[in-house]
Amino acid sequence: MPTLILLRHGQSQWNLEDRFTGWVDVDLTAEGEAQARKGGELIAQAKIEIDRCFTSVLTRAIRTSWLALAAAGQAFVPEVKDWRLNERHYGGLTGLNKTETAAKHGADQVKVWRRSYDTPPPPLAPGGEFDFSKDRRYAGAVLPDTESLKTTLERVQPYWEGEIAPCLQAGETVLVAAHGNSLRAIVKLLFGLSDAAIIDVEVPTGNPLLIELDGDLRPKAARYLDADRATKLPEL
Amino acid sequence: MPTLILLRHGQSQWNLEDRFTGWVDVDLTAEGEAQARKGGELIAQAKIEIDRCFTSVLTRAIRTSWLALAAAGQAFVPEVKDWRLNERHYGGLTGLNKTETAAKHGADQVKVWRRSYDTPPPPLAPGGEFDFSKDRRYAGAVLPDTESLKTTLERVQPYWEGEIAPCLQAGETVLVAAHGNSLRAIVKLLFGLSDAAIIDVEVPTGNPLLIELDGDLRPKAARYLDADRATKLPEL
Repeated sequence: MPTLILLRHGQSQWNLEDRFTGWVDVDLTAEGEAQARKGGELIAQAKIEIDRCFTSVLTRAIRTSWLALAAAGQAFVPEVKDWRLNERHYGGLTGLNKTETAAKHGADQVKVWRRSYDTPPPPLAPGGEFDFSKDRRYAGAVLPDTESLKTTLERVQPYWEGEIAPCLQAGETVLVAAHGNSLRAIVKLLFGLSDAAIIDVEVPTGNPLLIELDGDLRPKAARYLDADRATKLPEL
Repeated sequence: MPTLILLRHGQSQWNLEDRFTGWVDVDLTAEGEAQARKGGELIAQAKIEIDRCFTSVLTRAIRTSWLALAAAGQAFVPEVKDWRLNERHYGGLTGLNKTETAAKHGADQVKVWRRSYDTPPPPLAPGGEFDFSKDRRYAGAVLPDTESLKTTLERVQPYWEGEIAPCLQAGETVLVAAHGNSLRAIVKLLFGLSDAAIIDVEVPTGNPLLIELDGDLRPKAARYLDADRATKLPEL
């Protein structure tokens, strides 16, 4: 039976500093590392044998996958890294403090940028500190300069359908270690959620979300491995 | 220009306990972790940009690659794990203490098993604690039950030629994070060493060996990134 585990990376340095992170390659804090290890221990306790791991090209998600796999005693699992699992690109907000941004643009505007489905922030100015186009990990890719959750989903979806879904259809148990919004995109696709409904889905950090699927990759059962830190899941 | 970096994993728990390890999946000690991080820092200081990483399916080599890549700021590098880069299989000696084994079989016999090119130890008894044939990481593989350095090389060579060499021929910079004897096999192949000469090559742990190659993958230059911990290298 195809089985999917979604694991959101733990706390990063900029989560702590309350800054818009997006594609900036900020590392985990010690607390974030502990969350990732805990996630791996829960996977081991549930006796889940992972066949393959997918993650983004951002260090905080990659190291979450590494710490979790090692804690689960499954470091040998094949792993694929792809930018299409990156966090939503925060455009011109990248690097800004959230409180300062609210003071400047108004709390309502910031709420729209953060919480609406299809309104992207202003684009990232090219050539600045956070221009990722010269970063070799993105060589050959056509990169966004800002994203809404909608356009995040639009680049996650072909990767999901082309790379991840075929492994699940082959009956594999797949771990996806990624970010709040790339995981939201996968949840929206899998559960067939509306644009409004996905906004209220928040995958907690470091808490593996186990989704059992049928042969057509429709969710049959879903639960967080740490029930005490679970958030509301979509109806099946 | 094709560039190869060979990195031997740092100290493991059984190195400390002086036991024959081989394919047993013993983890790094804290000292071994520090050696791996140091290796990554040396790679960063040398401004080496890795395109691809190959490692074994044993945790101590995988975690060495992870710690080194993270310390080099290159966690995003694609990584492939394959059992053909595993340590030499120590057959029936697996798990035994080296001193006790010398007391039992004689120091000369143990020296032959450890240091001759083509004498394997007795085979591993099937069904015991260290029978790896049921381990899912080896599913589908035809496994040895003991290996000499010669037979280790015989399974490293097709992997080298089929998977690693083509990346180098495409001009990539490749990191191979592996084990004393699988790295010896690669050094023997690359430098065209005799069966006698390879026995005296000892790649130090956690010290990246940088080898610059020509288009036919002949070594043009080779040096350890930590010159203070270098061992003797083959003549070019």
